[in-house]
Amino acid sequence: MKTILVLGAGLSSSSLIRYLLDHSTENDWQIRIVDRDMSLVQQKIGGHKNGVALSFNALEASERLPEIEKADLVISMLPARFHLEVAEDCISTKTNLITPSYISPEMRALDDRAKAAGIVIMNEIGVDPGLDHMSAMKIIHAIQGKGGEITSFKSFCGGLVAPESDNNPWNYKFTWNPRNVVLAGQGGAASFIQDGQYKYIPYNRLFGRLHNISIDGFGDFVGYANRDSLSYRETYGLENIPTIYRGTLRRPGYCVAWDVFIELGMTDDSYSMTNTEDMTPRSFLNAYLPYHQSMPVEEKFKLFLREDRMDLFDRFKWLGIFKDKPLVGLDSPTPAQALQKILVDKLSLEDGDKDMLVMIHEFEYRLNGEKHAITSHMVNLGEDEVYTSMSNTVGLPAAICAKMILNGTLKSAGVTLPVQPEVYTPILDELEKFNISFIEKRRTI
Amino acid sequence: MKTILVLGAGLSSSSLIRYLLDHSTENDWQIRIVDRDMSLVQQKIGGHKNGVALSFNALEASERLPEIEKADLVISMLPARFHLEVAEDCISTKTNLITPSYISPEMRALDDRAKAAGIVIMNEIGVDPGLDHMSAMKIIHAIQGKGGEITSFKSFCGGLVAPESDNNPWNYKFTWNPRNVVLAGQGGAASFIQDGQYKYIPYNRLFGRLHNISIDGFGDFVGYANRDSLSYRETYGLENIPTIYRGTLRRPGYCVAWDVFIELGMTDDSYSMTNTEDMTPRSFLNAYLPYHQSMPVEEKFKLFLREDRMDLFDRFKWLGIFKDKPLVGLDSPTPAQALQKILVDKLSLEDGDKDMLVMIHEFEYRLNGEKHAITSHMVNLGEDEVYTSMSNTVGLPAAICAKMILNGTLKSAGVTLPVQPEVYTPILDELEKFNISFIEKRRTI
Repeated sequence: MKTILVLGAGLSSSSLIRYLLDHSTENDWQIRIVDRDMSLVQQKIGGHKNGVALSFNALEASERLPEIEKADLVISMLPARFHLEVAEDCISTKTNLITPSYISPEMRALDDRAKAAGIVIMNEIGVDPGLDHMSAMKIIHAIQGKGGEITSFKSFCGGLVAPESDNNPWNYKFTWNPRNVVLAGQGGAASFIQDGQYKYIPYNRLFGRLHNISIDGFGDFVGYANRDSLSYRETYGLENIPTIYRGTLRRPGYCVAWDVFIELGMTDDSYSMTNTEDMTPRSFLNAYLPYHQSMPVEEKFKLFLREDRMDLFDRFKWLGIFKDKPLVGLDSPTPAQALQKILVDKLSLEDGDKDMLVMIHEFEYRLNGEKHAITSHMVNLGEDEVYTSMSNTVGLPAAICAKMILNGTLKSAGVTLPVQPEVYTPILDELEKFNISFIEKRRTI
Repeated sequence: MKTILVLGAGLSSSSLIRYLLDHSTENDWQIRIVDRDMSLVQQKIGGHKNGVALSFNALEASERLPEIEKADLVISMLPARFHLEVAEDCISTKTNLITPSYISPEMRALDDRAKAAGIVIMNEIGVDPGLDHMSAMKIIHAIQGKGGEITSFKSFCGGLVAPESDNNPWNYKFTWNPRNVVLAGQGGAASFIQDGQYKYIPYNRLFGRLHNISIDGFGDFVGYANRDSLSYRETYGLENIPTIYRGTLRRPGYCVAWDVFIELGMTDDSYSMTNTEDMTPRSFLNAYLPYHQSMPVEEKFKLFLREDRMDLFDRFKWLGIFKDKPLVGLDSPTPAQALQKILVDKLSLEDGDKDMLVMIHEFEYRLNGEKHAITSHMVNLGEDEVYTSMSNTVGLPAAICAKMILNGTLKSAGVTLPVQPEVYTPILDELEKFNISFIEKRRTI
């Protein structure tokens, strides 16, 4: 019997745990799951005989280490900053490790030691990062295998609300950590390269320079630039590509409206506001509008919007930003925290709502003197509020990878990413059974 | 004979050193001046018999301490981050200390120890901070002395180019550290209070929300908000004032044009640009404009400016931002560093140029049921490129304060600011002899 230790039983672990339990009997696995919240673990295990519920503080090395010693494989769903500590434990106990988070330089530096210990440390095997790497590398390797030269790669991903649950003027609901959505794009300019020209977009322009994208049957989307597109040249082995761009997808209208919050200064997380005991959405907004002796906040906000953005007014009104009811539970918040509070009240998934994960890659390449284009897209809908598309697309790649490590399909040791055919091919194949599949279109340009 | 030790002989020390030497014989002072650049010290001393030129690294405690032990008073013109170390040395050697820089919480915490040592540690005794405190407190104390209640205090200061040397389309030249001008307003929103309403202005709006100000004989100015106006309520003892605002002055048109650089992202100092070996002003600008296959940078920039700002185009052209000549001497610069390089080439003081320091306070107060207003302004022109207005207004308050400490006029020990009548009255009186004087206007409103 093989033992899998799952660290963390939050929302993002639902589909991962279900897959592991569903495949535990045939594979002779015991799934040991730890979270500080015992009821969360028990709920996820649902009485399955191969599941063992544990409750301790997995962030404490001394509490974590005995369990890691027992395991053949650890899947860490902890906050990303703890992965390095867990990796050290896994090296010392010769235990394989999977994380869905971005690989850090410090994690990368453990490669030799992981190899010496004979273990796999697989990183970035969720959806973004994860599924994006796998689905892109499949096409990149196919083009390169025919002798083609890739000249442009643009890639977009977005966690959105499913069309059937899309019933608000923002065409958006939080399907992931709201704080990350409020802070999206902060901390330095977005950088990419287009036709050999390096381009930088500052935060205050990010939601104003957009790509338009349509997907048959799902309508229109817009993409705004992710912070760092340049590093993907190395990740994908495309060092000399003239154009590389990665972006995040939203429905049309969202970004231009979000830009209003940025321009007002309401997404800032760098300082705490003063005198906020009685703060209401209205007084919060008013703090970012010029003083006027008598003009109502609505009128000042309209002046701020300008004529050309006046069609956005109703989106903001719907959010309740003109209401004068106190925002409770906030203690000297940053503007970003106050804004998050307002948004979460209106933009959360409701009972019965489904989410939607959209990914699209756009390639251009030269082959035998001709220019070609490939687009590849995936749209996946969630099952319900627990087994969301976000949970499925994050958890299933990690779960399938776990199976491959334990059954010996995945042999190479060391600190790695899912960018090699022996990793991504079986995972992409199995994901199709879960309706996570890509549709390719080709044309000559 | 009393000994004064001056740490640092840069541009900001010129007028300070001249005053100390000019008054050294009558007061029986020896002025010991240290800078790493010996020629700079010798140039400032100009062979004066009471000046002693020293060259060592004043940032090194072991090199500095023997000189501090010899001195009765230290004037530190070092970068602000070193003042605390110097203050520790001054406490241990019981030596008085003057710095023109903002008082830090750590510096404030030395108050008891400074008192125990019987020394004065006078901070913020330059122009801004310094002259602003003294000239404002004189009026505040006068109003309060009559029983008036101050309801509004707005204060502006700007280092500008004198009208006779104002010959470029930006109506601006660097009279102080250009880096600080490029980074002005970064690092958190500007905050102030108006009629009891807390107001925040994010960086991307800072140069767009302006106050208009006119001064007889000197024309029009605009003010943009300084980062923190709120803390001045405590400094000036105006804790419950409904309106307090501090701003920086520029000539009309400067701010709206500067805002274009901010909106483009060219003032960011948080990341290094990639592939900048052959960077020119033109390619630097192009990195912040959208990609286009064939449209020239000038046309893309015009689209960015929009019709309503098209009158600014010539300012940018005059700066040379469309030129394709490499920017030399920059190694992977931040955008702010690259922009500074372009600006310094065009906006520096030239031989014979004079600078100008402008300060204006606007008060409103209630007295005996009536509302009154007082404005108080000061315009000071520099003598030349060495004895600039900036150097005079920074150095002379510190120098006069040095005299007051050494001749026993200023008696109170401890860590302090120039906000008490016994400090500011003699200093403001003597500054009038140097043409640094305020003109007050009063009216009933």
